[in-house]
Parts: sequence; structure tokens; C-alpha cells
Amino acid sequence: MITRLSRLFLRTLRDDPADAEVPSHKLLVRAGYVRRVAPGVYSWLPLGLRTLRKIEDVVRQEMDATGAQEISLPALLPREPYETTNRWTEYGPGLFRLKDRKGGDYLLGPTHEELFALTVKGEYNSYKDLPVTLYQIQTKYRDEERPRAGILRGREFVMKDSYSFDLDDDGLTNSYATHRKAYQAIFERLGVEYVIVAATSGAMGGSASEEFLAASPVGEDTYVRCVESGYAANVEAVVTPAPAPLPIDGQAAAVDYDTPNTPTIATLVDWANEAKVLDRTVTAADTLKNVMVKLRHPDGKTEILGIGVPGDREVDDKRLGAAVEPAEVELLTEADFAANPFLVKGYIGPKGLAANGIRYLVDPRVVDGTAWITGADVQGKHVVGLVAGRDFTPDGTIEAAEVRDGDPSPDGAGPLVSARGIEIGHIFQLGRKYTDAFDVDVLGENGKPVRLTMGSYGIGVSRMVAVIAEQQHDEKGLRWPAEVAPFDVHVVIANKDAAARDGAEHVVAGLDAEGLEVLFDDRTASPGVKFKDAELLGMPWILVIGRGWAEGKVELRNRFTGEAEEIPAEDAVSAVTAKVRG
Amino acid sequence: MITRLSRLFLRTLRDDPADAEVPSHKLLVRAGYVRRVAPGVYSWLPLGLRTLRKIEDVVRQEMDATGAQEISLPALLPREPYETTNRWTEYGPGLFRLKDRKGGDYLLGPTHEELFALTVKGEYNSYKDLPVTLYQIQTKYRDEERPRAGILRGREFVMKDSYSFDLDDDGLTNSYATHRKAYQAIFERLGVEYVIVAATSGAMGGSASEEFLAASPVGEDTYVRCVESGYAANVEAVVTPAPAPLPIDGQAAAVDYDTPNTPTIATLVDWANEAKVLDRTVTAADTLKNVMVKLRHPDGKTEILGIGVPGDREVDDKRLGAAVEPAEVELLTEADFAANPFLVKGYIGPKGLAANGIRYLVDPRVVDGTAWITGADVQGKHVVGLVAGRDFTPDGTIEAAEVRDGDPSPDGAGPLVSARGIEIGHIFQLGRKYTDAFDVDVLGENGKPVRLTMGSYGIGVSRMVAVIAEQQHDEKGLRWPAEVAPFDVHVVIANKDAAARDGAEHVVAGLDAEGLEVLFDDRTASPGVKFKDAELLGMPWILVIGRGWAEGKVELRNRFTGEAEEIPAEDAVSAVTAKVRG
Repeated sequence: MITRLSRLFLRTLRDDPADAEVPSHKLLVRAGYVRRVAPGVYSWLPLGLRTLRKIEDVVRQEMDATGAQEISLPALLPREPYETTNRWTEYGPGLFRLKDRKGGDYLLGPTHEELFALTVKGEYNSYKDLPVTLYQIQTKYRDEERPRAGILRGREFVMKDSYSFDLDDDGLTNSYATHRKAYQAIFERLGVEYVIVAATSGAMGGSASEEFLAASPVGEDTYVRCVESGYAANVEAVVTPAPAPLPIDGQAAAVDYDTPNTPTIATLVDWANEAKVLDRTVTAADTLKNVMVKLRHPDGKTEILGIGVPGDREVDDKRLGAAVEPAEVELLTEADFAANPFLVKGYIGPKGLAANGIRYLVDPRVVDGTAWITGADVQGKHVVGLVAGRDFTPDGTIEAAEVRDGDPSPDGAGPLVSARGIEIGHIFQLGRKYTDAFDVDVLGENGKPVRLTMGSYGIGVSRMVAVIAEQQHDEKGLRWPAEVAPFDVHVVIANKDAAARDGAEHVVAGLDAEGLEVLFDDRTASPGVKFKDAELLGMPWILVIGRGWAEGKVELRNRFTGEAEEIPAEDAVSAVTAKVRG
Repeated sequence: MITRLSRLFLRTLRDDPADAEVPSHKLLVRAGYVRRVAPGVYSWLPLGLRTLRKIEDVVRQEMDATGAQEISLPALLPREPYETTNRWTEYGPGLFRLKDRKGGDYLLGPTHEELFALTVKGEYNSYKDLPVTLYQIQTKYRDEERPRAGILRGREFVMKDSYSFDLDDDGLTNSYATHRKAYQAIFERLGVEYVIVAATSGAMGGSASEEFLAASPVGEDTYVRCVESGYAANVEAVVTPAPAPLPIDGQAAAVDYDTPNTPTIATLVDWANEAKVLDRTVTAADTLKNVMVKLRHPDGKTEILGIGVPGDREVDDKRLGAAVEPAEVELLTEADFAANPFLVKGYIGPKGLAANGIRYLVDPRVVDGTAWITGADVQGKHVVGLVAGRDFTPDGTIEAAEVRDGDPSPDGAGPLVSARGIEIGHIFQLGRKYTDAFDVDVLGENGKPVRLTMGSYGIGVSRMVAVIAEQQHDEKGLRWPAEVAPFDVHVVIANKDAAARDGAEHVVAGLDAEGLEVLFDDRTASPGVKFKDAELLGMPWILVIGRGWAEGKVELRNRFTGEAEEIPAEDAVSAVTAKVRG
């Protein structure tokens, strides 16, 4: 197949688009792969669409190889099934909702657990039919609060989502393992550098889940690894190892102090060391910081929640968000403080919260017997030696404190180090959350109904275009691995002689006859412009028919290594074909 | 590729679904190709999806062969461009509209003229870039008032839409002709029996347009043909040949008569013949029937309109609808009559309408000099000999009267005959409606800007699955032409012997090795069940490995002709391959 640049619907841009911050976004726009239509909503131009389809094909092949079956469900979905699982509400403003002409409620599918559960229920009724895994490659919709980075986080995007249905837990474990392996094969073929990390299940529900993260400094996800043990987890999923409780007996009684002008942890620590309230140097880790947030529950009700973390740590918004899902976190307003005068800013303590019926959750490090310097619920007063389990009893723990490099790995094997990544896949052992909601049973071998157990597995297919661009680009432009490149080879004529042009046509026809997909720059532009475009567009091989033609030479460039080699013109077709076939 | 029925996600149904009226709907549901999710919203199960993809591939190949380039625009679209062309309003309740979390207005694309015009404007700026044709195969959304017949008229459906951009009218004519030819090639390959008919352009705008209609008794479109000349048109597009005007001079003056109890044409004709008001027998064609409708214009304003048609013809709702687009037709309410007392039901005449400023459009047969028996605007009174051009002057003509078999063809070649069809394609010469709206100019050869001219061309891809099913099925089930069949051959084991089963596995592996797509009924069900399913599912060839196996015989059945032939088992692979490659 030959595509001529002179006719290709493509205009490359010299300058980065004004709204682009990350390299993949800049390059995919400059190279004419995608165009913005609305925030988080993009068009795919010919080169972009070809890349997207190649990724789809890889995903499809590997899914088919597992025995999964492709189907296609609507994107426009009725409200009822999502009402049944409460996700119509729980999804909050992230769900695109609409009404039809008769006033019926619909949504644009963000993920399809409900519909796949109903689909299996509709067709199957015997244990003999199981297990089954179904998948689709489909356009999905999420009304992201902050669509960003072009197609990296869009509001309309292409996803492969699959769903496994099994008779029992072992079956689910197998289906999950099969997907995990297939995903590894897919990302391997796509040439993506990635890690698999433990994850939280969030709004999806279910027990176990893991994320596939592509390593990238522009990633929105932070994950941590323990080099010693190989443990890896999304920060949201990191479980803080709780120290052993300390004996309470024999600890000094708590004492209130006047601590004027100490509304911050830093000023409090300074005061404590000046006042020598402990027989050692006080650090921020000796203080207990109480952070107040307002939770908005799916039913619309709000709740003020107190969170206690060691004063040397910030609350991590994403960990907090994951910990309270499906509730959403909001900041307290001045009106909230006015309505709750016991919340004395800068001096809030556990006792005041307890006395006023505010739920109070603490970092897992706040175990019984630990003594803290914390607020005394009075302006300008703190308490020293407030002992957990004696002077206050939290309502539970919460994983909300930041995870820091050097923190101990939950498996005890060594310190954690953090890095950033882009979520490219997520696999869930959902269990029976959705099959319970819709009574998805089949008749078991013993004649009794069996409730099916379900897994859900997703890959961001359109996002993958950006991820590969992000990981593989260089300062000159895009660089596509062979599996996903829109064309196998980019042939550039850099010679105005009629003989060279004829020769190029001949070579291109030869490559086409070999079954290669050829992008042919037959334009009359200058060689400099053509080389720049070839580097920007990023095909893995660039064949230059230039000044050497008269001496029977052409040049083959490797876009990844930058290496160029002269080859005899008469060998051009066979040499390029050999390189492409690798 | 081998797909085993024992593992295929499929359950065939013995009974027709309760909501299905047309054969394709019944069969596609019974054969497990599609499942209903909401009115006009369907899931594609494995066999349906395979068929859909094969149709997509045929369409894609033929579009690519024309030089058209595939891109993919979003389905979720911002309001602004559709506001610019007024289609945000004109589309009325047929458009799915929604708001995002920030209150921004969006729609689900029903067709993409606006976005393609903007896309070309964004990339191209020189005459050298033109012509260009872009297309997409994409999910589209229309909130049909009456979704019907399964996927035949859905609210979420797959369409191929393409858009040509040319520098001048000749270019558009060429692009239009290219599409017309490509569509013929596509429908030919898909084995669809179709006609090309003149059509109205409707809400799309533009000058010329033609529809491709698949012949089908369940079609919603009525078209007429002239056998003599080959003229064919959608009834909405039929132009009534106007007779020559008659001389007015010498015609008798109009006379009012008391005509009690003649509110209908039939009673009026009876009265006229009894009263001998003409010196010949009066027929309904001598009367002028005045039909009142209320138009709702896109801006929300309403207008009462009078339509005069010869009394022997009804007003055709579809022709009327097409004639007044983008206004919508409503019935007058009792309140409307009460508010306009000059509208005397059963006795409305042209003079009363004129006197009260009501717009009055007449059938093209109502030419100057024709004399009519019509209402006198008074209860129980009619006027005889009311002459057009003398006693009343209509505000114009309207194509609203029904077209009947035997009516003269507009080209004068002979009578028209009517038939029903399903719209499968529509091609439009849009002209500059959209390029004017968005100032889509390029720099011309002479350095001056050139406004591009545009064509728009659509094929209902998912609808095609139903159309083929509709045209090709028989009483036993579906029958797929080779190009679109989900599998090339359906192999049935109808023999429990281990040797036969092994033999079937061997044959199936052989067919797979030949590159055939094989559906393999390896279930333990009875031969009767398997044969019924094979006929229902509709692969073009059915290979039965049955009782003859022991004698070295297998049976090959042609699903279209019903013919069965015994072939030696050892030739099964080569014989089937030869048939499939046909």
C-alpha cells in the first residue's frame, strides 16, 4: 500500500500548540495525528487513526488468543441498570447524562460492568456455558474534571474492556491471571515500559486489583516500589505498616499549655523545643495534625470528617480521595467553621471532635500508647502527652497521609522509592458485586443455581497512542515501534532529477509489491523540509533517494538509532523489506 | 480460523421476539446476532459484530479505492458549529443534546457536515491541496420518534459518512459521480437489490441529491418508477407535471350554492351531480379540497397554512413534510379553529383564506384557468366555477398531494408505478451551504480566495445488516452472501462415532489451513437441532459430517439454493475451498 504525501490529508505544524504541555500532545498535534474539537475531545486524522487501529489490532489479537470473544455494546445506555448498582449516582459529575425525546434518562457508558452482567444473564443459563470472557473495543465517555494532555486524558476515548464470568473463585483467579498475562504480552508488543502495581478498586468495587502503569514523568499516577522485594503499588494502594502498640501504663498525664501564635506545625515545634516540654528534641513527627474535610456522599448528604496524621506528613489528596470513595472530598467553608465553633483553626484536637460527635480517623501510625502534641480545642492552647487509647480513641484508621521515598515497604523488605506513571491498564477481581445486583445465576452441575463471579479488565487504547509517543519520542519528533507505526517505511525523494524520481517510483512499487505499507514523500518541497517532516512523523525506517542515486546509492535511516547506511539502489527493496520484517 | 459452537457466546431462540414485526428483526434476534438494550439501541453479539465488520470492510475498500481518506471525528460534539448552521435548532427533538459538568452544551453527532468543513478549513489553505474527500465509519445518534424493526431504524447506529471538497462545480460533479459509482460497487458486492432515486435534500440543504433504496416490502420509503424511461424518485421528490394554463376569457362566473350537509368531497360530488351544476358528470377531481395545517418553524413560531389539492387526492404526509422542511407539520386544534372563525370546517375556500391573510399553496395541477367546486367559507355553502387566476390567486404551489400509480412521469415518458424501499445510501451535492457558514476558503491559483464546494455521502452500515437479512432470508432463517457471512462455512457433526468426530476435526483443521473462517458445530446436540441452527444462522455453505462418514462421504449444502451434494470425504477440504472461493 502506497500513500503519497502530496495527497495525504496532513499538514504538519512548525510550532507547538498553545494548549499543549506534554511532549506527546505537542508532537501528535504538530505531526497532524490528532486535532482538538473540544476539551478532551479529539479528531483522529489519517496517521493518528492508522496508529490507533494498529494498537487495536494488537489488543484484539492477544484477547482473541486468550479465547475471549468480541462483542459490541452501545455507548448510549439506559439509566436503570446503573441505578440498580447505584453507579448512576456514585459516578457523580464524571458521568455524561442525557434525556431522550420522551424524557427517559440515559448515560454515555464510562465502563460496562452492568451491561455485560445483563448480557451474560440474557444468554446463558447452565454451568456448561461457563467460563466465558467477553470484550469490546469501544468509544467511552467520562466527563473528566480536568481533561489534559491531549488524548492522554480525554473525555471521549477508546478502551478495550473485557469481563470474565466464572462459576467459582478459582475460576476468577484463572481468568484474572489469563488477563494479566495477555496484558503483559500486549504491552510487550507495543514496546511500552511499564510496571504492574497493586491498586485500589475504587468505584468499581471488588477485592483484588492491579494497575499497569507506563513509566513517564508526565504521568498522573504516583507509584512506589521496593527494590529489595519487587513490591509495587499505586500510592493510593500503599498500606502503611502499623507499628506495635506501646504500653500506656506509666505514661505521664496529658498537660495543656498556653501556646500563643502556634497555628502551624512549624511554630508549634519551635514552641515545644523552647518550652522543653519533652526531655528530648521535639520534631514534627511528635505532633498530631488534625485536618478537617467535608465529605459529600453519593446520596448528596455531607459530613465533616477529622483526619489525624503525624505532623511531619501532609494529607495526600489522591490517597484521601481513594480512601473515602465513593464520597467526594470538599474543603470546609468559612460558613462550616462558623456553624461549628468548636473547630478552632490551628488548635483542633481529638477531644473536641469526639465531644461534638465528629467522626475522627487517624493514620495507622497513631497506635495505642503513642503520645502526641496536638490541639487543645481552644485558641492559643495545645496539649502535650495526649495518649492514643487513653486520652482519645479514634473511630478508625485511614490511608490518607502521603507516602514518602524511604518509607518502609509494607512487606518489610526495605524502603520504598516513588516514580510517576500513566495508567494504561487496570484489572479487577470484582467478585459478585454486579452478579448479585442482577441475580446472574446459572444452573449448577448439582441442579442448584450458582451465582457467577466476575472480573473486569481495561486497557486505554487511544491513550496508548499518547503513551507510546511519550515514551519513544526524541527532540526531533515521534518514533513508532514497528507494531504500531502507521507505515512501515517513509520514502523521501531528495533529488529533482527525473531519473531519480522514476527510480523512487520504481522502488516504492517494489516495496508495495512486498506487502509493505509505504508513506511516500513525493512532494516538490526541499530536502530539508522533507527530512524534518520524516523525523516528526516518526516511521521506524526512512529511505532517502537523494544525490547518491546517480551513483546507484540510496540511504536507509533508522529513526530510533539515528543510524544511516548507504545501500546499493538495486538492493533497496530487499534491504528495506528485511529490516521491516526484522 | 475455527470457532466452536460449543464455546461461542450464542444462544439461538426458538420463538420470535415479542417486539419484532419484520423478518430481519425476528431472525437477527433469534439467531443471536443482536440484542436490544433500549428502544433503537442494540448490542452486537459475536456473529452480528462479524457481519457488521465485513460490511464495514467492503465499504472501506471501495471508499479507499476512490482515493477518499479515512479519519475519525468525535461523536460528542460542541454546540457552536451546529449553532452556526442553525442545525442545533433545526434538528428539533431528533438531536440528542446534553450538558457537560460545566454546563457547556453538547450533542451526539447525527451527521458531521459542520465538523468536516471545519476540519478541512483547519488543515488546508491552497488550491493545490484540493480536491479532497474524507470519510469515517462511525457510531451516530438520532433520537428517532419511532425507532423500529430492530437495527433497521436505530437511535445508535453505524454509518459511513464522507465529504468531498472541491474548488468548483465541475469538481463537485466529479466527486458526486465518483461516490455514486463507489456506492453501486458496494451494494453490488453486498448483494443488495436496490434502485437509485431522485430525492429531496431536506435539512441537509444543497441542490441535487439521490437516494439508494433497497427494494423491500417493509421499507419506510415509497418510490416511483417509470418503466418506459427508467425515471425513479422517492415520492417526496416527485415533481408533478403542471398542465398548460387554460384561457380565462369566456368562462362562466362563479356561483355560490346552498349545499347543506356536504362537509366531505363524496357528499359534495353527489350534490353537484344531483343539482347538475355542470353540463357533465362531476368527479372528485373537479373539486378543490382545502386542507389546513399548522407549521411549527425552527424559531418556534407557528403559522396556519392552507393547502389546496384536487379533491380526488389526499395530502401525503411525507411529501408535505419534505415540502415544508425545516418547519414541522402539526394538526390544527379546536382552539385554532375557535380563534379563526373564518375557518368553517368542510366549507373552507380560497377566498376566505386570502381575505384573512392565510398563506395558501396549491397543487401544481391548479393552474390558471382551471375552474373548481370548492368551499364558500360559509357553513353549508359551496362555490361552483371558481377560476384560478381570476377568482383567486394562490401564494404558490406545493408538492403535497399523493402520487398514485398511473400518474404521468415528470419526464412525460409514461405512467409511474410505486414500490417500497429502505434507504441505504444518500448522496448530496451540498454546494456551499456549509463552506459559506464557516468561510472555508483556500488561496486560488490566481492568488484570490476560493470558497470550496462540498458534497456529503452516507451509507447506513449497521442498517445494511438488516437490509441484507431482509432481502436474503427464507422461512428457515438467515442467508448471508459470501462477502458478509460471519463465517465462510458451517461444519456440522451429525454423527456420534469417535471416528467421525476425529474426521471432522481433521476436515476443520484442513479448512482452517486453507485460510477459511470456519464455524464448527462440535456440540453434542441432536442432528435436527444442529441443522435447524445452521439454517437459522445462515452461513452460505453447510458441510455435514454425518452417517455417510463410514462410507467416506460428507454432504455439502448450499444455503441459498438448498441443494445438497455428496462428496468424498477426502475431497471435503478442496471442494469446500473451491466453493467458497467461487
